Amino acid sequence: MSGTLFKTIALIGKHKNPDIMTPLLNLAKYLAEKGIRIVLDDLTATHIDKNQYATLTLEEIGQQTDLAIILGGDGTMLNIARTLVSFNVPLIGINQGRLGFLTDLTVDTMYKTLDDVLAGQFIVENRMLLTTEVTRHGKSVFKELAFNDVVLHRGISSGMIELEVHINAEYVYSLRSDGLIIATPTGSTAYALSSGGPILHPGLNLMLLVPVCPHTLSNRPIVIGADAVIEIKAHYTTETKIYTDSHSWFDLGEHDQVLVQRCPKTIKLLHPAHHSYYRMLREKLGWSSILQKTSR
Amino acid sequence: MSGTLFKTIALIGKHKNPDIMTPLLNLAKYLAEKGIRIVLDDLTATHIDKNQYATLTLEEIGQQTDLAIILGGDGTMLNIARTLVSFNVPLIGINQGRLGFLTDLTVDTMYKTLDDVLAGQFIVENRMLLTTEVTRHGKSVFKELAFNDVVLHRGISSGMIELEVHINAEYVYSLRSDGLIIATPTGSTAYALSSGGPILHPGLNLMLLVPVCPHTLSNRPIVIGADAVIEIKAHYTTETKIYTDSHSWFDLGEHDQVLVQRCPKTIKLLHPAHHSYYRMLREKLGWSSILQKTSR
Amino acid sequence: MSGTLFKTIALIGKHKNPDIMTPLLNLAKYLAEKGIRIVLDDLTATHIDKNQYATLTLEEIGQQTDLAIILGGDGTMLNIARTLVSFNVPLIGINQGRLGFLTDLTVDTMYKTLDDVLAGQFIVENRMLLTTEVTRHGKSVFKELAFNDVVLHRGISSGMIELEVHINAEYVYSLRSDGLIIATPTGSTAYALSSGGPILHPGLNLMLLVPVCPHTLSNRPIVIGADAVIEIKAHYTTETKIYTDSHSWFDLGEHDQVLVQRCPKTIKLLHPAHHSYYRMLREKLGWSSILQKTSR
Amino acid sequence: MSGTLFKTIALIGKHKNPDIMTPLLNLAKYLAEKGIRIVLDDLTATHIDKNQYATLTLEEIGQQTDLAIILGGDGTMLNIARTLVSFNVPLIGINQGRLGFLTDLTVDTMYKTLDDVLAGQFIVENRMLLTTEVTRHGKSVFKELAFNDVVLHRGISSGMIELEVHINAEYVYSLRSDGLIIATPTGSTAYALSSGGPILHPGLNLMLLVPVCPHTLSNRPIVIGADAVIEIKAHYTTETKIYTDSHSWFDLGEHDQVLVQRCPKTIKLLHPAHHSYYRMLREKLGWSSILQKTSR
Repeated sequence: MSGTLFKTIALIGKHKNPDIMTPLLNLAKYLAEKGIRIVLDDLTATHIDKNQYATLTLEEIGQQTDLAIILGGDGTMLNIARTLVSFNVPLIGINQGRLGFLTDLTVDTMYKTLDDVLAGQFIVENRMLLTTEVTRHGKSVFKELAFNDVVLHRGISSGMIELEVHINAEYVYSLRSDGLIIATPTGSTAYALSSGGPILHPGLNLMLLVPVCPHTLSNRPIVIGADAVIEIKAHYTTETKIYTDSHSWFDLGEHDQVLVQRCPKTIKLLHPAHHSYYRMLREKLGWSSILQKTSR
Repeated sequence: MSGTLFKTIALIGKHKNPDIMTPLLNLAKYLAEKGIRIVLDDLTATHIDKNQYATLTLEEIGQQTDLAIILGGDGTMLNIARTLVSFNVPLIGINQGRLGFLTDLTVDTMYKTLDDVLAGQFIVENRMLLTTEVTRHGKSVFKELAFNDVVLHRGISSGMIELEVHINAEYVYSLRSDGLIIATPTGSTAYALSSGGPILHPGLNLMLLVPVCPHTLSNRPIVIGADAVIEIKAHYTTETKIYTDSHSWFDLGEHDQVLVQRCPKTIKLLHPAHHSYYRMLREKLGWSSILQKTSR
Repeated sequence: MSGTLFKTIALIGKHKNPDIMTPLLNLAKYLAEKGIRIVLDDLTATHIDKNQYATLTLEEIGQQTDLAIILGGDGTMLNIARTLVSFNVPLIGINQGRLGFLTDLTVDTMYKTLDDVLAGQFIVENRMLLTTEVTRHGKSVFKELAFNDVVLHRGISSGMIELEVHINAEYVYSLRSDGLIIATPTGSTAYALSSGGPILHPGLNLMLLVPVCPHTLSNRPIVIGADAVIEIKAHYTTETKIYTDSHSWFDLGEHDQVLVQRCPKTIKLLHPAHHSYYRMLREKLGWSSILQKTSR
Repeated sequence: MSGTLFKTIALIGKHKNPDIMTPLLNLAKYLAEKGIRIVLDDLTATHIDKNQYATLTLEEIGQQTDLAIILGGDGTMLNIARTLVSFNVPLIGINQGRLGFLTDLTVDTMYKTLDDVLAGQFIVENRMLLTTEVTRHGKSVFKELAFNDVVLHRGISSGMIELEVHINAEYVYSLRSDGLIIATPTGSTAYALSSGGPILHPGLNLMLLVPVCPHTLSNRPIVIGADAVIEIKAHYTTETKIYTDSHSWFDLGEHDQVLVQRCPKTIKLLHPAHHSYYRMLREKLGWSSILQKTSR
C-alpha cells in the first residue's frame, strides 16, 4: 500500500466499552497487513491484554499520526475531537451500534469504506468549534472548547434563569428560560434540535442560539455569523450553570461574564467519497425517502 | 447641503394609500429646501393633484437617483426593492403605522433620522435575493425574483403536496406537507417564522428551507449556504403552486422542475448609524428587555 | 357460530382500489363459512365481476347490519363513518398497507383478530364528531359533519386570512394565519398534529383549536370542552375557504357566520380486546419503546 | 352590608414583600368598614407593626373564614391554594404588578371589583389538582400536591433522563428527554406552555403530559382524562428529580415508582362576574384583538 497518504493511523476505542475491542483489533490487523503503522491511545491499550501495537498518548497521536479512527459513539468522537483539535489530524468515526451524527460509518462496512479512503476516495470536512471563557473580576475562571455546544442552564433550581445577551457589543435580549444553547452547525443536530432549533449544514461557519423552554414564546432560535462575539451575564438571583458538550460544567457567580466565540482551529472530519450528509439525516431522523400517497 | 452624497432622492409612496401622501409631500418639501433634487415615481404622482416634482418611472429612478425613500409597509418595500435591484440604488423604508421588519423608521422621527443620514451617519447593508425558475420540457415557463421567499404550496387542494428536494444534485428528502418555504435571511422573519423557522441575521448569505405543516414531525427547518442550487420536483398527482414574495404565483405541471438559487445582485438597505437589528426584533416580537422576577 | 352478536356484517372496500378486492372476498368467504350473512355496499360491488353476496346501499347497511368492516385507509374510514353515523353500526377498519390511526388492523392478521371479535373479545369506543354550519343573512348555506376536523384556510390567496373567534359567545381572539383547525380528539393526530397541536386521547370529548402558521407566535393550540359553541367570522377582504375532513369545501362570503359544535351522535369503533392506542401511536409516530443509552 | 355571603374574610399577602402591606391594610380597612370581620394569616401579620385584626394560622383561616383574598403573584397563590385545598374556602387573587394567570385582579381596581363580589356578582370556578407519590420498596417516600404541575427533570446531570411511562397500566413510551411535565389545566399556561404544550381551558378536568426537549421529535404533548393513573419509572443510570409546582423536590432512586393522579379535592377560585378567561390570555400572551391588515 505504498501510495497511501496515511502511513500511521491511530485507533481509538470508546473508553470502558470492552465490546469495541474485538472489531478494533480486527481493524488494526487488517490495516497493519497493508503495511500501515498502527498505534493505539494509552486508554484504549489498557483494555487489551497484550498487544503488538505502539501505545501513545493522545498528544503523541496528534503529533505522530496521519489519521485517527475512533470506534465508539458521538460522545467519544466529541471528546477525542476536542483533544486533537490542535494537531490537525483528520478523524474518522465508526459506530458499532446505530449510526451517529458524527460516527457515520458502521463496523459492518468499515473494511470496504477504509479501502476506499486509503485509495484516496475521501473528502475532508472542516468543522468549527466554540471556545468559551468565564471571567470574574477580570480574571479567567473557566475556559473550555465545545464541538457541539455551550449551554447555560438552571441546573436543579426549579425556577427560570435570567440571561442578558449581547452580540458584538449590541444588546439582544434578556432571556428568561430553562437555559440557552449556543451551538455550532455540528451541534445543531444535538441538544439544540430537541429544543426547537433548525439544522445547520455542518460545512457552514455559523453560531446558533436556541433558548430552552423560554418564558416569552416569541424567543425563537437565532442564527448569526461565526465571527460574532457573544457575551452573556446571568442574573444573580438564580443559580446558573455553564456546560460545554455535556462534558464539563461550571457554576456561574454573581458578576461573572461569559464570552463565547469561534475557536481559531477546526476539526478535520474525513468521509468516504460517497458520503451523503442528507442520507445520514434521513436515516437518523426517520425522514421518508419515497413518495407515497397517504391520507393524513 | 453641499456635501451630501444624495443629490437626487426619489420618494415612493405605498400605492392606493392616500394617507401616505401628506407625510410624503412634507418630506419632499423638507428635503427640497436643503437643495436636494426630489423626484416621484409615476404611480405615486397619480395620487397627487399637481406637484412641483419631476415624475419618473421606477426604471428611471434606478438610473438617475442616489437614494430611494419608500413610505409604506414591508409589502411596498419588497415590491420596490425587487424592481430596483438592478440599479444599485440604496433604499430607506419609512412606515407610517407600526414598524415593519424592513420599514424600520417611523414618520414621526423621519426628519431627524434623515438629517443624520444626509450628514453621513448611516450604514449600508447588502441583502441577498433568490431567483427561481420553472422549466418544462427544457423550456423556462416562469422566472421571478424573491426578496423574502419562494413558497411551494398546495393552494386550494385539501390534501398534502409531495415534493422531491435536491440540494447541489444531492437528494435531500421527499416532503409531504402543506408546502415548503425557501427563504432568504430577510424572509426568515416573515412567513418562515410563522412556520417554525429560525431567525437568520439579515447580513448573512444563507438559504433557509422551512416545511409548512410537514406530515413527518422530524422534517425540521434546514439552513444551507447561499451558493447552493435547490432543485424541486412536485409529485404530479397533487396541484402545487409556486409563489414568490406572496406576489406572483404559478401552477406547477407534471414534469416541471423548480430551481432556486441566489440572485447575483443584492439590495442595498440604508440604515441610520444608530440602527439596531435586535432592538427592532425586540419591538416587533415583544421580547422582554428588562429582567424582572416573575413566577412562571 | 351460533352465539355471535354479529349476524349480518357489511364489507366495504376502498373505492377505485382493485387491490383491496381479493382480501375483501377472501374475508367474505371466511366469515360466510361461519354462517354470518355478508353484504357488500353497492360501490364495492361494482368492482367485483359477479358475486354471491347481497348488495346494499350504505343507508341500507346502516339499517340492516350489525357490523361494518372497512378495508382501506383512514380516508375511506372517515367517509364511511360520517355516512353511517346515524345508524349506530359499529365499525372496524382494516388497512392493507401500513397501519392508519383509524384503520389499525392489518390484512395479515385479520382472520385471527376477527375470530376474537366474533368470540366477544372486543371493546367499543365512542368517538365524537363535529357539525359545522355556515349561515348567510340568516340562511344556512353549508352544513357538514366532520370526524377529523373543520378547517378554515386561505386557499390560493397568498396572504394571511383574518378570523374573529368566539367561544360560547365570549370573544377569544382575532387570528391572522394561514388557517384555523378545529379538531376532534380523533382528528388531533391528523392535520392538527402537523400544525403543532397536541394528541388528545380519542375517548375524550373535547374540541381542539390549532392555528396554522399564525402571525402571532403566542397563538398556541387551545383545548376546550365538547359542549362549547364555536363561532367564527372571516374578515371580508381575504378569500377564505372552509373544509370538512379534507372532503368537502365551501367559499366563505363577506357576512358569513361559521358555527362549529359537537354532533349529538357518535361513531362506534370496535377494537379487538388487546388493542392498545399507545402502541398504535408508538408505531405510527416512531416513538422509541426501549430504553437505550445514547449520546444526544 | 348585611346580605353578604362573606362574613369573615382573610387577607394574605405575599411573604417577604413589604410593598404589598399598604394596599393590604387599605383593603382591610375598606372591608372592615362594611362590617366584615377581617383576619390576617400569621405570616402576613409579622410584616405589620401593630394591627387591629385577628391573626390566624392558615389552617384556622381554612376553618373560620368565608373567603381568602391573596395579594401577591401566581407563586403566592399556588402556595396558599395548596394549603387551603382541604377547607373549601374560595380564593381571590390580586396582583400588585402585572396580571398573573391566577392573580387576575389588580390593586388599582380591587375596591370596585370586591364591591361587585360582595354584592353577589361573582362566579366560582373549581380547579383540579394533582397528587403525586413516590414509593420505594413498597413504602411511600414522597407525597405532595400540585396545582400547576408535577415535573420530572434531569437536574444538573448534563445528559438526558430516561422515563418509562404507563397510563392506566398501559405502556405509553420510554421517553428520553430533559424531563416530563404532568400539568393540570391550570398549569397548562405555566411551564408546560414554555415546553410546547397547548392551553387547556381551566374549567376542564384533564391531565397534560408535555416532554421537555425530547430526543425523539415526534414525542408530542398528550392530553388524557383526569381519572387516569400515571405511573413513571426513571431509568436508574441517570439522576432524576421530581418537582411539584416548582416548590418542593425529591431525588428519585433506582427502584422508585412515581404515581400521579387527580386529587379528590378541588380549589375554588372566585372571579367577578365579568371575568373573561380569554381576555386574560390575550393580555398575558400578547394576542392581537383587533383585525388589522399587515403584510407578513
